[in-house]
Amino acid sequence: MTDLWTITEDAFEAAKQHHQETIFTLGNGYLSTRGAFEEGRPGDRRTTFIHGVFDAAPIVFTELANAPDWLPFTVHLNGERFSLDAGVVESFTRALDLRTGTLSRAVRWRSPAGLAATIAFERFASLADPHLLFIRCKVRPEFAGFVEFRASLNGNADNEGLAHWHRVGQGAEARPDARSATAYLHCRTRRSRIGWAGAMRLVGVAGRRLSAAWWDAENTPTLTLKMKAAPGRTLIVDKRVAVFTSRDLPEDQIVQAAMDRVNSVTDWPAALKDHAEAWAKEWERTDVVIEGDDEAQIAIRFNLFQMLIAAPRHDDRVSIGAKTLSGFGYRGHAFWDTEVFMLPLFTYTAPHIARNLLNYRYRNLPGARAKAKANGVEGAQFPWESADTGEEVTPTWLPHFADRAKLVRIWTGDIEIHISADVAYAAYQYWRLTGDDEWFIEKGAELVLDTAKFWGARAEWNAEAGRYEYNDVIGPDEYHEHVDNNAYTNCMAQWNLQTALDTLEWLRGRAPTKAAELAEELSLTPSALARWREVIEKVHLHVEPSGLIEQFEGYFQRKDVDLAVLEPRTRSAQEIFGIEGCNETQALKQPDVLMLQYLLRDYYSDEAVRVNYDYYNPRTDHTYGSSLGPSIMAIMACDVGQPDHAYEHFIRAVRADLRDVRGNAGDGIHAASAGGTWQAVVFGFGGLRISPEGWRANPRLPKHWKRLAFKFFHRGRLQEVDVK
Amino acid sequence: MTDLWTITEDAFEAAKQHHQETIFTLGNGYLSTRGAFEEGRPGDRRTTFIHGVFDAAPIVFTELANAPDWLPFTVHLNGERFSLDAGVVESFTRALDLRTGTLSRAVRWRSPAGLAATIAFERFASLADPHLLFIRCKVRPEFAGFVEFRASLNGNADNEGLAHWHRVGQGAEARPDARSATAYLHCRTRRSRIGWAGAMRLVGVAGRRLSAAWWDAENTPTLTLKMKAAPGRTLIVDKRVAVFTSRDLPEDQIVQAAMDRVNSVTDWPAALKDHAEAWAKEWERTDVVIEGDDEAQIAIRFNLFQMLIAAPRHDDRVSIGAKTLSGFGYRGHAFWDTEVFMLPLFTYTAPHIARNLLNYRYRNLPGARAKAKANGVEGAQFPWESADTGEEVTPTWLPHFADRAKLVRIWTGDIEIHISADVAYAAYQYWRLTGDDEWFIEKGAELVLDTAKFWGARAEWNAEAGRYEYNDVIGPDEYHEHVDNNAYTNCMAQWNLQTALDTLEWLRGRAPTKAAELAEELSLTPSALARWREVIEKVHLHVEPSGLIEQFEGYFQRKDVDLAVLEPRTRSAQEIFGIEGCNETQALKQPDVLMLQYLLRDYYSDEAVRVNYDYYNPRTDHTYGSSLGPSIMAIMACDVGQPDHAYEHFIRAVRADLRDVRGNAGDGIHAASAGGTWQAVVFGFGGLRISPEGWRANPRLPKHWKRLAFKFFHRGRLQEVDVK
Repeated sequence: MTDLWTITEDAFEAAKQHHQETIFTLGNGYLSTRGAFEEGRPGDRRTTFIHGVFDAAPIVFTELANAPDWLPFTVHLNGERFSLDAGVVESFTRALDLRTGTLSRAVRWRSPAGLAATIAFERFASLADPHLLFIRCKVRPEFAGFVEFRASLNGNADNEGLAHWHRVGQGAEARPDARSATAYLHCRTRRSRIGWAGAMRLVGVAGRRLSAAWWDAENTPTLTLKMKAAPGRTLIVDKRVAVFTSRDLPEDQIVQAAMDRVNSVTDWPAALKDHAEAWAKEWERTDVVIEGDDEAQIAIRFNLFQMLIAAPRHDDRVSIGAKTLSGFGYRGHAFWDTEVFMLPLFTYTAPHIARNLLNYRYRNLPGARAKAKANGVEGAQFPWESADTGEEVTPTWLPHFADRAKLVRIWTGDIEIHISADVAYAAYQYWRLTGDDEWFIEKGAELVLDTAKFWGARAEWNAEAGRYEYNDVIGPDEYHEHVDNNAYTNCMAQWNLQTALDTLEWLRGRAPTKAAELAEELSLTPSALARWREVIEKVHLHVEPSGLIEQFEGYFQRKDVDLAVLEPRTRSAQEIFGIEGCNETQALKQPDVLMLQYLLRDYYSDEAVRVNYDYYNPRTDHTYGSSLGPSIMAIMACDVGQPDHAYEHFIRAVRADLRDVRGNAGDGIHAASAGGTWQAVVFGFGGLRISPEGWRANPRLPKHWKRLAFKFFHRGRLQEVDVK
Repeated sequence: MTDLWTITEDAFEAAKQHHQETIFTLGNGYLSTRGAFEEGRPGDRRTTFIHGVFDAAPIVFTELANAPDWLPFTVHLNGERFSLDAGVVESFTRALDLRTGTLSRAVRWRSPAGLAATIAFERFASLADPHLLFIRCKVRPEFAGFVEFRASLNGNADNEGLAHWHRVGQGAEARPDARSATAYLHCRTRRSRIGWAGAMRLVGVAGRRLSAAWWDAENTPTLTLKMKAAPGRTLIVDKRVAVFTSRDLPEDQIVQAAMDRVNSVTDWPAALKDHAEAWAKEWERTDVVIEGDDEAQIAIRFNLFQMLIAAPRHDDRVSIGAKTLSGFGYRGHAFWDTEVFMLPLFTYTAPHIARNLLNYRYRNLPGARAKAKANGVEGAQFPWESADTGEEVTPTWLPHFADRAKLVRIWTGDIEIHISADVAYAAYQYWRLTGDDEWFIEKGAELVLDTAKFWGARAEWNAEAGRYEYNDVIGPDEYHEHVDNNAYTNCMAQWNLQTALDTLEWLRGRAPTKAAELAEELSLTPSALARWREVIEKVHLHVEPSGLIEQFEGYFQRKDVDLAVLEPRTRSAQEIFGIEGCNETQALKQPDVLMLQYLLRDYYSDEAVRVNYDYYNPRTDHTYGSSLGPSIMAIMACDVGQPDHAYEHFIRAVRADLRDVRGNAGDGIHAASAGGTWQAVVFGFGGLRISPEGWRANPRLPKHWKRLAFKFFHRGRLQEVDVK
């Protein structure tokens, strides 16, 4: 592989259809479209998800609504429709150019009647103007006759069978200066009533036009263009689409906005140039260079690309879901994955994006307060799964896979409470790194203070033991439910409370009016703060004399199992032992204590890290446990001086989607893993550490790496690390 | 109202849209199509349900899949699309001709640009050839220019948002002998993989044709016809559609079958004549004549019409759902409603249809056996809700309407067990009335015997009380769940066991080989039969010395409530008292004991009927309880000599859908109520009674009725009752 910027495919394998659709997803931070084929294929999952366009759905409460489909573009050779499932596919190549965010495909096809042609598609979702989408189709016929091109907007999109849209209207306008019409479609989500408008043009670029038509077909407006075919003479036709929603503009303006925008396009080269220039700027600050390891080089770029296409640049009302915008998995809901696994990439390389993501949480404080209140506590309790309003949208029950009359209770929405500290942590880290005092005063401080208020209220006093406890929780390690005093949760709560006290003190000096306002609004009375101090001092944590931290109360009494003897395996420890059985062992989906030590590294000595690493590493289900684990394990392995073990974890993480190592990449990108790979490189191999005095890098490269280079912003200035 | 065969509407009211769609449903026993408009309207529930075309769905397991839409037919006046929501509707009439099963609509419309025209549609689903569907559009323009007609088949149908279909293929063929193409669409259900093919022609009948086109739009093949418009010159265009599914033919033949069938149509007059003749034959044996009460006359015809369009004439693999094929309610599932409320109409007037419906249960014996086995008992336990396979498809849980995190457990599928006796009862009645020994030997006897086996196994011996019991059940009265020894259930079980013994004895004489076969297959050993006899003898029933039967054990100790003091009301007793609260009262959704006495009338003296009527009648929620109740109450009121009280119940039943008295007619026809109205007329007012000696009628007409006439088959011969 000499081109280290391209993901390629040399043959189409139907069995990998959904996986490859995920891999070849394009996006621009406004929307993403999976790599389904323009002409369609049975069973394809052709989705376009637009940030924030949610609609109600049974069981999962709300989900990103698969938007009306802008892709349909079919080619007909003397009346025979091109399809991978008819005739003979004589060659097939597909390539995703990560540098410019363009997807191309070329197929040499022989029709059932024997006509041959090379049919190529190229598409991009403009990063320069995220409302614009482009597809170019080139056909090189080897026969004489005609080729017909048909392009549609299709309002009949659904989410695995659930229809979210109603048609509102459609039509077409002839442009005075053009020979072809501009068609539009206007739809609306059924329950959330979000308007969507798409406008489309079909433009012949090369070839002799025979005729054109406009089909006003219900909910599928279609433009057709018939061109003369002669052997060896390439025909080129462009489909241009513009999309707006009522989240962008008042709904009565979106049709006109889409029409105007698509009519404003001059030509493909100009649009592509703008797009490529926008991508060049992204890579300028985001790219990571790895020499001596081509697979790692291209894979890290792929993971960064997935983060960049999902990142909201112009909208601070949305987050990034656990599967980005690339598949149906987790329904577009956002988890702690965003704050802990993805956000550092943006905090360090694109603070404006990180700020948007944090503002999403700030805007959703009312939902978090409502959740706390409903649970009988105070402050801000962020939902475990979050969509458009900040309400909890974790499914409460899911049907049992084996017995349709049974339901499985999902507890994470009730008791996986650490997310509130994770959000506060992310806000605080953003501020410490960027020095964005204005934002912290206006918004960040409130996130830190109100989550602290939750922790103050949620702590239970155990009079007998003389300590504060957080009981009946789930830590990041979801193999163990309903545990008491989870080390990660308790220590992060403690950190959150202490940081809130520090924040309040800082605010009183720096922005006393705001400090007074917040103290008033959040009822931060002296007695409330006194309770925080007491919880900080007396929150329970069991630490062995060696420095070994017990993951939760009673963990050391659970059955110890040797995961190594299960190898080789293709199932998780939980599947092997069963949900209940696994809960009784020390097997971990991911190691909470190491996660904690990673986030609060300065609180632990090197020796304390080593002791815990040695204990928890062999008890962790690295292969089929949490996909969030490997990149953090890579960092901790570097920390204890084992960069080659670290590399095993790292390569597992960067391959997660490219090689579909868990068999579910078809549901969408493992976004936390993708974001984590950047942390593994920068904080693990690169050894970057930030302190109040500045930053330093203590590189610990895998043996075969010849160079590692990356950039990041520190207090507004771009820094560069280049280790050779 | 002088025409006693027509349901009319003089203005369109958007608020009644769904109700009127139900009322104006057409069908032919193969499929039914709701009265949605050809041109569409926002929020319409445009459904076509085809018998047996089920597809899997969450929560409800399976549902009738709303079939690809054959209705779309739009009219464009000089380019302006006709719609009730644009321009001015200057007049509107709609009429359903019950005698011929045709629906017509005429609208005088002024377009937004001021063009006026009278636009009329007429449609029917051929009863002569149930695969054929027809729409005629007549436009009388008051302007010059052109009128465009567009007709589509639309594969993008869904069930309230759930998409059940995938497109398989589409296309068009030019007919050598015609100027217009025949278009087709081929779809398949997503999970059950049932193929559907529709073929369509668009035929200009009157007017000068300007152009025609075929739009190969994805999943919405469309034919268009543009005609010259001149003031006062009526244009006529016919849309003809043929539909087949892979339940009719192998899937690789259905497209061609649909094409051939639609191409075989000669013209509208011939097709309409065949259709009307088929309807005349139906009415010849089914019509009920009431003189002196126009409302009752037309309403009874409406209810009979609804039964006739839902009745499977050519298929014995399907039943009639609780909402026929006319709406989303109950998802097409069949209940005891079919056997107890609808079947008598067919047993008496159309035995061939009754036999089809009973064969459906016979075919589903394997499912009923599996259900019994899963519950640890033997024999045939029919599902409370039944679809295509006879498996139980009652939802186990439904989301709570007020708290999304809560689920309500639905128990009817577990413990409303009386349905097994109801099926046996229907089979036995069919045999007694028709004398169809061949069917009873081949199929009916097994239904009776295997359900008896279930009752033998389900009975519990209470040693202390020295009796057999059926505990933890729900009777027809669903206001009371988890009751013991429900009188209806226990007595019907007793009847079923005794009838099985009688059946076996009869079989041994009449068909000894079959008797031996069944005894072997069903393990009807002497000891098994001895247990049946013991259960018959010792099954518990509490009867007061007066003859008053206790509905279930402890019912008389429940709180007595005076429903009369709640009047006037618009909610059910259950809504007023709450689910738990109502359960603690004696308020009834429907009166089980009266239902029992109706079915097993010969077992009870007139005095016993009167005592129970007097007790249970005032305790029954006639207005908002079960829609199944009123027609049976009408019969029992006649029985105790109160025909005018009977009339109150009867008129409530016949109005159920026409006047939407419960506010939910939009979900579909109340089929049990519709079937029950025929019983109220024939067995109530007509006083028909069958005995081994023959039949007699003891008419008890309401005072204002001047004549009542009806027909029925008795042992293969058509009988006529005409009371003046």
